[in-house]
Amino acid sequence: MTFQLTILGANSATPAYGRHQTSQLLTIGTHSFLLDCGEGCQMQLMRYHSKISRINHILISHLHGDHFFGLIGLLNTMSLGGHRQPLHLYAPPGLAEVITALLRCSHTVLSFPLQFHALESPGNIYEDLYLTIETIAMDHGVPCFGFVFREKPKPRRINKETLPPDLTVPDILLLKEGKDVYDADGHLRYKNEALTLPPRRSRTYAYCSDTRYNERIIPLLEGIDLLYHEATFMQDQADKAAVRYHSTTLEAATIARKARVGQLLIGHYSSRYREIEPLLEEAQTVFANTQLAIEGQTYTLED
Amino acid sequence: MTFQLTILGANSATPAYGRHQTSQLLTIGTHSFLLDCGEGCQMQLMRYHSKISRINHILISHLHGDHFFGLIGLLNTMSLGGHRQPLHLYAPPGLAEVITALLRCSHTVLSFPLQFHALESPGNIYEDLYLTIETIAMDHGVPCFGFVFREKPKPRRINKETLPPDLTVPDILLLKEGKDVYDADGHLRYKNEALTLPPRRSRTYAYCSDTRYNERIIPLLEGIDLLYHEATFMQDQADKAAVRYHSTTLEAATIARKARVGQLLIGHYSSRYREIEPLLEEAQTVFANTQLAIEGQTYTLED
Repeated sequence: MTFQLTILGANSATPAYGRHQTSQLLTIGTHSFLLDCGEGCQMQLMRYHSKISRINHILISHLHGDHFFGLIGLLNTMSLGGHRQPLHLYAPPGLAEVITALLRCSHTVLSFPLQFHALESPGNIYEDLYLTIETIAMDHGVPCFGFVFREKPKPRRINKETLPPDLTVPDILLLKEGKDVYDADGHLRYKNEALTLPPRRSRTYAYCSDTRYNERIIPLLEGIDLLYHEATFMQDQADKAAVRYHSTTLEAATIARKARVGQLLIGHYSSRYREIEPLLEEAQTVFANTQLAIEGQTYTLED
Repeated sequence: MTFQLTILGANSATPAYGRHQTSQLLTIGTHSFLLDCGEGCQMQLMRYHSKISRINHILISHLHGDHFFGLIGLLNTMSLGGHRQPLHLYAPPGLAEVITALLRCSHTVLSFPLQFHALESPGNIYEDLYLTIETIAMDHGVPCFGFVFREKPKPRRINKETLPPDLTVPDILLLKEGKDVYDADGHLRYKNEALTLPPRRSRTYAYCSDTRYNERIIPLLEGIDLLYHEATFMQDQADKAAVRYHSTTLEAATIARKARVGQLLIGHYSSRYREIEPLLEEAQTVFANTQLAIEGQTYTLED
């Protein structure tokens, strides 16, 4: 099953040097989750050939403009494209009111229902057969949430090389659940271990933007496969970062190291940086497996 | 004095093929007027090296999203850039409410004052020493206005080749007003015609978007130097154009011809057209001096 993150924008407060404000598209199997929606997000989705029609969930971390001013335009375009499925919007309180005002003011009746989910306190906000999403509190001066995506434990895999021809579909379902197969009289026909392989890995992704350095999130990120953590500034701007409720490269990397995550992705670059390579080099001094979030790039987690 | 129109976006309802929604920057002398503000307008301003800080007037023709969803992001960026001058916003009623809601929701306090001017009926909305702006009613199903920019009559020009060395500054001001110069005893010193040249041309620009074909605007556009008139569709879609309150290429060209304008610029292209050259060719069958509005291109009116 696909588990892919595409960066649509990774600049901070304003666009600069061709870099857009924050948006990411996380595709897990048939689901596409849009994380934040900076201005121009819909153009970025088109540029990188992402299917807008597959988005049914949009998660807004907080209501600073660089994280949601592209939302109303995206909704409008989805509607003109004839989108029909309900669209779920998760955001701190206030979004419903302003989107409703924008739709009314712009004489717009959407082609699909909007379902608003106000994020008020951290916890589970989504669950389906394969996946859960939980929010964690960011430290950003305004209500702001990170999002942690966790695949659920997966079934054991049938080992096709050892599969006997007499197995029925119910037998296979039992085997996937880790059970042995018995005949009608209760005698063991097949031991599970003989016919199955261990389950595939359940992958995890955490999105933490925007936030000041905050050690309280470390236990919540323990062992995450891929962590996106904002790194607005380099370390020489640590004072400014703290005052503005943002993080530095070294702070993001420290969170990654202490939480023992697999990979760190940094982004939300300040417009003061024309070149962002130095941010990567600085973060890697603390956490080697760091990458830069680059627009148009897709980061894949294998299972 | 500069009189330049730069196209920032000329697509219609949604972005397509890299084309952005409607925005134009009209620069007249030291003034920069932004006409409509589709999503991504601020990125387009940056891309084409336009000075955002010089914009003090933004005119929104109507409150369909493709004409104003870029406004809140632009305001935010101007504020982060430390803009201080008052910003005048002209739009049909409703903009103040929704911008206020967006600012409140996004925890934003702008660095400059906003002054809203609600456009309710056609008339003069702006006048300074050099320029007037009047609105004209479009036929678009919702309150919608065109904008006509007219330079005021200009002073006569001093002919430097015939300028006598004994003229004072007050003498020169009199000459520019078309008056003769007399000495203290009331004797004619210089006839105006001997020392001046005729005034430079007063240029005019009219912006008409969005609108259905509407002959009532023709007398208001009589002799305009440069007319931008929307041409969303080609002529084979005339029925659709009428139902959707838009115009075709031939309709835009007919308005231009009947109003005897100097040049016609067409735009607001439907996303159904990947190639827009055929729209130009069709319009030119009715009005030869037609051009396509192309993003990043600047159209200059000489005086």
